[in-house]
Amino acid sequence: MTAPIDFYFDFSSPYGYFGSCRIEALAAKYDREVVWRPILLGAVFKLTGGQPLPTIPLKSDYAHRDILRCARYYGIPFRIPSRFPVATQAPARAIYWVWDRDPPRAKALAAALLRAYFVDDRDISSPEVTAETAATVGIEREALLAALQEPAVKERLRTETDAAIARGVFGSPFFIVDDEPFWGADRMDQLEHWLKTGGW
Amino acid sequence: MTAPIDFYFDFSSPYGYFGSCRIEALAAKYDREVVWRPILLGAVFKLTGGQPLPTIPLKSDYAHRDILRCARYYGIPFRIPSRFPVATQAPARAIYWVWDRDPPRAKALAAALLRAYFVDDRDISSPEVTAETAATVGIEREALLAALQEPAVKERLRTETDAAIARGVFGSPFFIVDDEPFWGADRMDQLEHWLKTGGW
Repeated sequence: MTAPIDFYFDFSSPYGYFGSCRIEALAAKYDREVVWRPILLGAVFKLTGGQPLPTIPLKSDYAHRDILRCARYYGIPFRIPSRFPVATQAPARAIYWVWDRDPPRAKALAAALLRAYFVDDRDISSPEVTAETAATVGIEREALLAALQEPAVKERLRTETDAAIARGVFGSPFFIVDDEPFWGADRMDQLEHWLKTGGW
Repeated sequence: MTAPIDFYFDFSSPYGYFGSCRIEALAAKYDREVVWRPILLGAVFKLTGGQPLPTIPLKSDYAHRDILRCARYYGIPFRIPSRFPVATQAPARAIYWVWDRDPPRAKALAAALLRAYFVDDRDISSPEVTAETAATVGIEREALLAALQEPAVKERLRTETDAAIARGVFGSPFFIVDDEPFWGADRMDQLEHWLKTGGW
């Protein structure tokens, strides 16, 4: 039994979305499972002094161009959302709640939410949009909406984000496999090399 | 005649060094010239709020690991310098002064300085070390030491750094070809794809 790949991402991160579109195929090639772990980058940025890309001089213009170019390079359907970034508590909480019941369905929901935000320009910060999207992958809308209000579900996301920070996660996407960290969709070539060779 | 690739880097940047080891072979494959343009990242960081990697919580530990791993992945000789980062005025000024007289020799000097810092752990912030290194590629030591004190040579580096910022350069390495910007040693795959296809 090989260890799974921990895949950390924020639902508002375009590079996290690109990572999400490629990680399952990559992991399957090397017989690894993937654990999807949404986090709140805002909490991380408080620690690192990081800023959302659109607020950084020079870097924001480049990032806009790079994100569109990467989408074309990887062949991933994408458009810049009208609201960016957005708060991602609702979709992130939803994933942990569904994961505890049915991990494959949680992955399907995460993919559907990322597509809703980055392809269909839906505002997934809204619990209603999150629940509507959940319904499309067979999750009961009202049950999810109720869950999103539960203190334990809210606490779970805080705990997961804190645990991610404790492991050194500071960006999105961020992969950890066999205790080896890989930050960025652009480290997936080295992640693959790691899976293939067991380290170098 | 195709346009050259502008290669911006800071002498204190490990990723810039990795880029320097790979850009000439890549450019030659597609019949492009490379113009080497050292800049001062410190001036850029004043504008973007960027910080040297060793000062950023979480990111610094990762960067240390990632830099060593990238060197092994690319097969580039490398060790973390005992002093990092260092001021890079002396080597950067030397490059522009030599470039105006003999561009191929300026490239040889840049490569020798990067190797002195990132392989032999020499402190290239020192004008003396810069001049000694220059002597190994056939540049007259005393003439270079005198040039490094000239106001026009100092001004030249400021002008080049300002011009780089005006073009949107904010990191190292940073490549611009046909007005298309590529930031990072990890964008050299997309840079190559651009050279091959003319854009996508």
